Amino acid sequence: MEPERTVASTTEWIIDEAPGRDVTAAIPADFRLASGERLSADTLVGRIHGPTKGPLVVITGGISSGRFAARWWSWAVRHGGPVDLDRVRVLAFDLLPGKTEPGVTITTQDQARLLAVLLDSLNEARIDAFVGASYGGCVGQAFAATFPERIGELIVISAAHRAHPAATAWRGVQRRVLAFARDCGREAEGVSLARELAMTTYRTADEFDWRFATIAPAQAGEAYPVCEYLISRGADYAEATSADRWISLSDSLDRHAVAPEAIRCPLTLLGFTSDRLVPIEDLRELAARAPALRRFDEAGSIFGHDAFLKERELVGRTLHDALSPLYARQPDEIAA
Amino acid sequence: MEPERTVASTTEWIIDEAPGRDVTAAIPADFRLASGERLSADTLVGRIHGPTKGPLVVITGGISSGRFAARWWSWAVRHGGPVDLDRVRVLAFDLLPGKTEPGVTITTQDQARLLAVLLDSLNEARIDAFVGASYGGCVGQAFAATFPERIGELIVISAAHRAHPAATAWRGVQRRVLAFARDCGREAEGVSLARELAMTTYRTADEFDWRFATIAPAQAGEAYPVCEYLISRGADYAEATSADRWISLSDSLDRHAVAPEAIRCPLTLLGFTSDRLVPIEDLRELAARAPALRRFDEAGSIFGHDAFLKERELVGRTLHDALSPLYARQPDEIAA
Repeated sequence: MEPERTVASTTEWIIDEAPGRDVTAAIPADFRLASGERLSADTLVGRIHGPTKGPLVVITGGISSGRFAARWWSWAVRHGGPVDLDRVRVLAFDLLPGKTEPGVTITTQDQARLLAVLLDSLNEARIDAFVGASYGGCVGQAFAATFPERIGELIVISAAHRAHPAATAWRGVQRRVLAFARDCGREAEGVSLARELAMTTYRTADEFDWRFATIAPAQAGEAYPVCEYLISRGADYAEATSADRWISLSDSLDRHAVAPEAIRCPLTLLGFTSDRLVPIEDLRELAARAPALRRFDEAGSIFGHDAFLKERELVGRTLHDALSPLYARQPDEIAA
Repeated sequence: MEPERTVASTTEWIIDEAPGRDVTAAIPADFRLASGERLSADTLVGRIHGPTKGPLVVITGGISSGRFAARWWSWAVRHGGPVDLDRVRVLAFDLLPGKTEPGVTITTQDQARLLAVLLDSLNEARIDAFVGASYGGCVGQAFAATFPERIGELIVISAAHRAHPAATAWRGVQRRVLAFARDCGREAEGVSLARELAMTTYRTADEFDWRFATIAPAQAGEAYPVCEYLISRGADYAEATSADRWISLSDSLDRHAVAPEAIRCPLTLLGFTSDRLVPIEDLRELAARAPALRRFDEAGSIFGHDAFLKERELVGRTLHDALSPLYARQPDEIAA
């Protein structure tokens, strides 16, 4: 769920790497996850981007995302962008557990409570908006349901109120591949293999057909063109996470459940009809049951679940439209 | 691609296990695969079911199928069934390479040439019909294209003239999981894991949603209900094949390419709109380009690619309709 690392986006990264300052919150010693477990980390690290004053927008993406929102969502979170760093403050944070920590059983509500800890440490009683895509969309729903008084509005992209059993099927196989490779002492290879499988679920059959010819290799077991792509993406990811961290966050996606009726703030929802992990039917149900639906858009895309990273114009317009009331609200204060 | 092993089908197996007699053909010493490789096996084993005289129908199924057609397709290949063992002789054969043989690079044309070797040994110049489902549908196309004078008609279910790159993506990950586990010295576990992944591609998201509740286990890494199903199916399959055999036949599916224009015998085609491995669009193209299309049906099913095993009424009707000219042709001879 990382962005594609093309030359163009690398350039954007260089531009946007500078903004932001890290903030750290101590996790209270008595903080327990819903499972009863303790986190091994004792701090939560976030990053604030943009001006020193102005509306506060929290942004969380897929399980590979983290506090560098201007990096993993560089085209969206930038000066003058759909999430305009000239007009709003953006807070993003690192999802726990971290790469070097043991695995935990952690819910999206737990992630929302960790965000509340971070907000408390920043003396922020309330956020103006939560923008969540994929796993972040689940965390945003949990935050809105758990802390209704602390959120102005919620924007959810490519996420629903429940995990679909077909997505659980795919993620479950990934978790077992990760555990198998870890137990074989070849964890990095397991991370690559699981990433290969994950990529097939993030994208669509149509995209693979459009991009990749069927050119058979010399020998059975060797790579076809689509395999070369998957192998490359898997290899890039081998060191990105530990097996235990991925298992924890993958399970958290499957454990996700929020009653749409509990999301009482205004909700903007965007989904893609080609998304294999989050079927559009589930977003329709979320939209139908949410008590304060502001807007629900569904769109086609060749990019499936990864559309939230790839469909810049469409996603950008949704973000801009949802946040523009914040932009209009306090121009004098922000300009200061 | 095995049949479901329910109590009911087990009973059918017992009924149908008896019929048939094995036949063996020597593979010529100079037989080379298209890759230039030699098979390590020197014989090909088939099984003839039904009467001693009458039209000859060859049946081949998925890569897990073999000569026991009255076992793996027990509801279809039986006395009085859609493929009526009272009226036609049925020949099925074991796909090479076998479980204890080294992996090879083998095409669907190679499998068709092996069938020709078997037919020669039986002094059968010509078959009246080839019924092929999944991989068998690919082999049937290759046989019709390679030996147009040796086939009366072709019935293809859930197979197209090419491999779809999205299917290659999934199968490629399975092959790399198999090779990884083999190299770790834990081959049977790799076969189980690859089978779990395969099952997610044989079935549909709707079926998983219909069958499995989202009940979270106590701890991250443990199994959800859909995972328990996949783990069980994977465990059942751990000893069914070697990694090398599966890699060979999986690659053969991806290597499959037959020009529809080369299939000059009458063609009956049945596809399912929910099939994730063989998109219905590819069957439509096959139907549009085949010079002697007799009939093309497409149908919905909650079972996706496995519909050829599960949709008994629909598949049975297609088989019966396609084969009934054979049933009518020689009643006196068959009754003898």
